[in-house]
Amino acid sequence: MSADRVSADQVTAERTGGRLVVVGIGPGDEAMVTPQARAALAGATDLVGYGPYLARLAVGPEVVVHASDNRVELERARHALGLAASGRVVAVVSGGDAGVFGMASAVFEAIEQGDPAWRGLDVSVVPGISALLAVAARVGAPLGHDFCAISLSDNLKPWETVERRLVAAAGAGFVMALYNPASRARAWQIGRCFEVLRAVLPEEVPVMFARSVSRTDELVTVTSLGAADPALADMRTLVMVGTAETRVIARADGTSWVYTPRGVAAS
Amino acid sequence: MSADRVSADQVTAERTGGRLVVVGIGPGDEAMVTPQARAALAGATDLVGYGPYLARLAVGPEVVVHASDNRVELERARHALGLAASGRVVAVVSGGDAGVFGMASAVFEAIEQGDPAWRGLDVSVVPGISALLAVAARVGAPLGHDFCAISLSDNLKPWETVERRLVAAAGAGFVMALYNPASRARAWQIGRCFEVLRAVLPEEVPVMFARSVSRTDELVTVTSLGAADPALADMRTLVMVGTAETRVIARADGTSWVYTPRGVAAS
Repeated sequence: MSADRVSADQVTAERTGGRLVVVGIGPGDEAMVTPQARAALAGATDLVGYGPYLARLAVGPEVVVHASDNRVELERARHALGLAASGRVVAVVSGGDAGVFGMASAVFEAIEQGDPAWRGLDVSVVPGISALLAVAARVGAPLGHDFCAISLSDNLKPWETVERRLVAAAGAGFVMALYNPASRARAWQIGRCFEVLRAVLPEEVPVMFARSVSRTDELVTVTSLGAADPALADMRTLVMVGTAETRVIARADGTSWVYTPRGVAAS
Repeated sequence: MSADRVSADQVTAERTGGRLVVVGIGPGDEAMVTPQARAALAGATDLVGYGPYLARLAVGPEVVVHASDNRVELERARHALGLAASGRVVAVVSGGDAGVFGMASAVFEAIEQGDPAWRGLDVSVVPGISALLAVAARVGAPLGHDFCAISLSDNLKPWETVERRLVAAAGAGFVMALYNPASRARAWQIGRCFEVLRAVLPEEVPVMFARSVSRTDELVTVTSLGAADPALADMRTLVMVGTAETRVIARADGTSWVYTPRGVAAS
């Protein structure tokens, strides 16, 4: 594609006012959708995203909804960029935060690989309350010191890389948030993950299974690495694994708070 | 303290309706404060927090504001818990998200170490848009795959622990968000951090300095690990370090987007 063509397409996009915003709508509770996200959605002519996320939104009759399943991120990103290049105002919707295992990376990957004119488009990202933050707040303050987020999905990276990261993070004392712990197609990974971690961490380390946090089917289980049951994880679950410093405060009503102290003693 | 005394204090707290909520108010932009955080602030009789965060809030004349400096988290937490135990409705305010190097961990630490009656208090945490998420959204999608957050402050942990975590995270391929990179009292740490990382990572790895993101004095610099200048970091800066996979997309207007692809090739 020639430089002239790029330039012509850029002019077209500018003239028509097409733009794309990737929007994180939080974990589910309406009260966790930021006003910035709400405004971005309200300004869109087209909504693009995974069906169940779009179903959470109140959409005006004039808005075009492009729902898809959750496996075709790049294709969905290209479709959204094509719409924006044609002059539409497109909101690409992710649950949680779009930059944390959401659609934002796929959009930029599609831009880099795609039509050079897409680099001239007005593209922005609106952050959202990620599952990581919502789950931490729900159980107390488990991310109180250094932490990491790891996707257990081996669809886009080798399982060996996942294991290497689990061992590195646990060994170095990071609290871990484990995304995509299980699905119908990936049943064994979370069990293997606990095996790997038990070789590095004490079995008393707190483990939290947090399913659908902030939604009506919310289910939070606080247990230990030694007792953690892989069957508690599914597609809608975020699993958190503490460190040897993470504390559980038992309360009179049978519930508990989990927190990790800010400080680490010299060893 | 006897069990009788605990029980009596719990009854008092329940009768007076005292409670405590730890609230994350995001990085600065009003449009990033969630409705949930806004409601928690509006319901409080007392606001407790670091002065500059409280100064961002519109406060009614009947609300008592307890501003403090940013070094006395535990003392501030105890003060807030004492107010809640006396029947006040207390909001402890953090910038960003309270669970990410904010006040939430200090509150639970104070509960565990403090008056056993505090375990009977109604304590909750409201998540906020963390600096991590706001900065990532601002520059593109640098957290596109597994990532970690590390505080470079050695006030509460030995510097050796910080270095060990930097090496582990870089070696295992995590994108890194570096909190508290520098202050007047901690000037050398960020320079030493880059030295440590240059021994592990290629010098082309993208590095972002993001100061006061979403505020009027916002300043974002995208550079590389080889060229990263420690002088660009201060108390209000979050530093992000990519991986060998992180990409910079140059745009015609001189700006750029930074993203990390979702997938990692088998190695």
